[in-house]
Amino acid sequence: MKHDLKQLISDRIKHVPESFIRKILKVSIQEDIISFAGGHPNADLFPVKEIAAASNKVLQESGRQALQYASTEGDRRLREWIAKRYQDKQGLNIPLNNILITSGSQQALDLLGKVLLNEDDAIAIENPGYLGAIQAFSVYQPSMHGIPLNQDGMDIDTLATVLNEQKPKLVYTVPNFQNPTGITYSEENRKAIAALISKTNSLLIQDDPYGELRFTGEAKTSFYQLLPEQTLLMGSFSKIIVPSLRIGWIVVPDELIKPMVIAKQAADLHTNYFSQQIIAQYLADNSLDKHIEKIRRFYARQKDDMLEAIKKYFPADVEVIKPEGGMFLWAILPDGISSMALFNEAIKQKVAFVPGEPFAIPGDEKSQTSTMRLSFVTVNQAEIEAGIKRLGMCMKKMS
Amino acid sequence: MKHDLKQLISDRIKHVPESFIRKILKVSIQEDIISFAGGHPNADLFPVKEIAAASNKVLQESGRQALQYASTEGDRRLREWIAKRYQDKQGLNIPLNNILITSGSQQALDLLGKVLLNEDDAIAIENPGYLGAIQAFSVYQPSMHGIPLNQDGMDIDTLATVLNEQKPKLVYTVPNFQNPTGITYSEENRKAIAALISKTNSLLIQDDPYGELRFTGEAKTSFYQLLPEQTLLMGSFSKIIVPSLRIGWIVVPDELIKPMVIAKQAADLHTNYFSQQIIAQYLADNSLDKHIEKIRRFYARQKDDMLEAIKKYFPADVEVIKPEGGMFLWAILPDGISSMALFNEAIKQKVAFVPGEPFAIPGDEKSQTSTMRLSFVTVNQAEIEAGIKRLGMCMKKMS
Repeated sequence: MKHDLKQLISDRIKHVPESFIRKILKVSIQEDIISFAGGHPNADLFPVKEIAAASNKVLQESGRQALQYASTEGDRRLREWIAKRYQDKQGLNIPLNNILITSGSQQALDLLGKVLLNEDDAIAIENPGYLGAIQAFSVYQPSMHGIPLNQDGMDIDTLATVLNEQKPKLVYTVPNFQNPTGITYSEENRKAIAALISKTNSLLIQDDPYGELRFTGEAKTSFYQLLPEQTLLMGSFSKIIVPSLRIGWIVVPDELIKPMVIAKQAADLHTNYFSQQIIAQYLADNSLDKHIEKIRRFYARQKDDMLEAIKKYFPADVEVIKPEGGMFLWAILPDGISSMALFNEAIKQKVAFVPGEPFAIPGDEKSQTSTMRLSFVTVNQAEIEAGIKRLGMCMKKMS
Repeated sequence: MKHDLKQLISDRIKHVPESFIRKILKVSIQEDIISFAGGHPNADLFPVKEIAAASNKVLQESGRQALQYASTEGDRRLREWIAKRYQDKQGLNIPLNNILITSGSQQALDLLGKVLLNEDDAIAIENPGYLGAIQAFSVYQPSMHGIPLNQDGMDIDTLATVLNEQKPKLVYTVPNFQNPTGITYSEENRKAIAALISKTNSLLIQDDPYGELRFTGEAKTSFYQLLPEQTLLMGSFSKIIVPSLRIGWIVVPDELIKPMVIAKQAADLHTNYFSQQIIAQYLADNSLDKHIEKIRRFYARQKDDMLEAIKKYFPADVEVIKPEGGMFLWAILPDGISSMALFNEAIKQKVAFVPGEPFAIPGDEKSQTSTMRLSFVTVNQAEIEAGIKRLGMCMKKMS
């Protein structure tokens, strides 16, 4: 018998956009390419020695326990640290039982999709938005409604219309140094969003992987303060310690704890417990604040270097969003220049970046034909200068 | 406004049975309880020092890379080892590209459900079966058809009927030292199953976490040999090295690679890369065969101890399935004795086990009212004797 395995594939998975970024990465890891494309943190800043010390301590002091099966909810010591950090840094009082450890914050997105989304349920998401969130939610086949971003945050009129007409179960936000645009929601914008959502039965997700990486200005109010009953907080150690351990977390209201734990049991039983213990030990024995300060200073300088090079080499009519923190610059090309065409030209000149289209809500790709994301964190000063210069030449050639 | 968050929960997650085993674990970790309930391997056998050595080597030699984001498919060196192991131990020729590393084999089950199951699609699953598989698949709301197990494997008549009438997309098996019954499919049974499935468009899952833990008899033929185009192989390091690192794998046919990789990207980007490297380094620097031999000898002796105690203390009409390997004994109580009632009585006497009901396919709980699973791997000889004695007394009191 001839077996047709393709016929077995679910409808669900056909709706998930592939990661253009991962495809790009395969191109951009060629050694002679200067890449502004990645979403990776700078590995030169990883606390390798401190992680080694923490690993050894965990294995020496409680090796058998650290290597055995563990609880689905996550390590208690780590969750206590997270609760205390919210208290110390943001004045938030988060009960331990509402914090679940996840296998990276990507898993938190998958679990939320699983636990909340029936097919065709509406969700609202920043446009352009984080591709990983678009992917994770797509699996559950919701109807996705993009909320355009302005320099100060979500477009309030569009959000009001979508909340009113679509009644989305979820509103997904990265309010600090957003991926891909680097923008930060203003206090006024946050208050307006919270006021609108408080009148609905929607939940707001505050995904905050870069929040601690602020270069300038004051930290903004958490949505948890403005909208405590309806805010889900997500966090991650990927950008402030290391990514490969895949340790993130989510804060959920009481009603969602049990379904989230059941969904997590079914997905992977529990998150790598050795790695949870490594992070907890690292945090007990080191000053995270000092480490973050080092990352901040380094990334801020790189950002300044890139902005300076852009001023020198980009055509004057390219608009650039200056971020207050995080990892990304966002550029908007003058009318008529396609960032995808620029990408193809740039690759020939051995420079990579991510064009805006993959960050668009599916179906709304046209809104991002002339936008582009530039990461400033993994390349050195000389490469920034050389890469931006080449990009500028490509732009000039095309305009 | 009053917010009703319960109303937001998806239909999907309401269908997932909670893990009775995890509930039991909370009872059975009381210190004075002798527990035969867990599915944990024995932590005294964990190669803690060797894991520490491997961790240090990885961090010293390529720390930055090991702590950075990594590929969704998994570490190449680890996948090469897995391919070679299949070749060396079972004579199977598995292309590297068909092996995906997963966050424990539990994640492989979740990804298969995601990639293959539309709502109401049929699947066939051993009854009683592995609770983690029942949970993982339930999320995708299939219609589940239990195939009863006999001492030599699946009931062939029932399988033929289900294949014919329900056309299941998946047939889930644990053919070696099955969880919960400990039985192993005979060569004849495997051939009969393969012959039936080859005439259909179904896929067979061979989940094989315990396959290397054989005490007696000869290794049986892999379904991959009998049914290469339609077999999905799953494996895990949890029972042969350590569980907390959550490293498993799945072998899928070409047609499923891309959708599985997309589903994994959306679920957690990639599996903990530091832990993948630790396992790969451990395997490069140590003899896994020697380590497995140590586990085998230890577990075999414990199994014998338990069988001896059972002979001494259980009523003669309790039927016990003697496993050729793995971690579990299965007992069938004489008519009229409920294993759930026995569980409640046993807990008072400070002994725990898992009653059969949670292993039943949802809706068929009645088939397992007088069965029970006993793990023989985590308790010592004196506890086995004492625990089985107490269980025997409870049984006698109830009959």
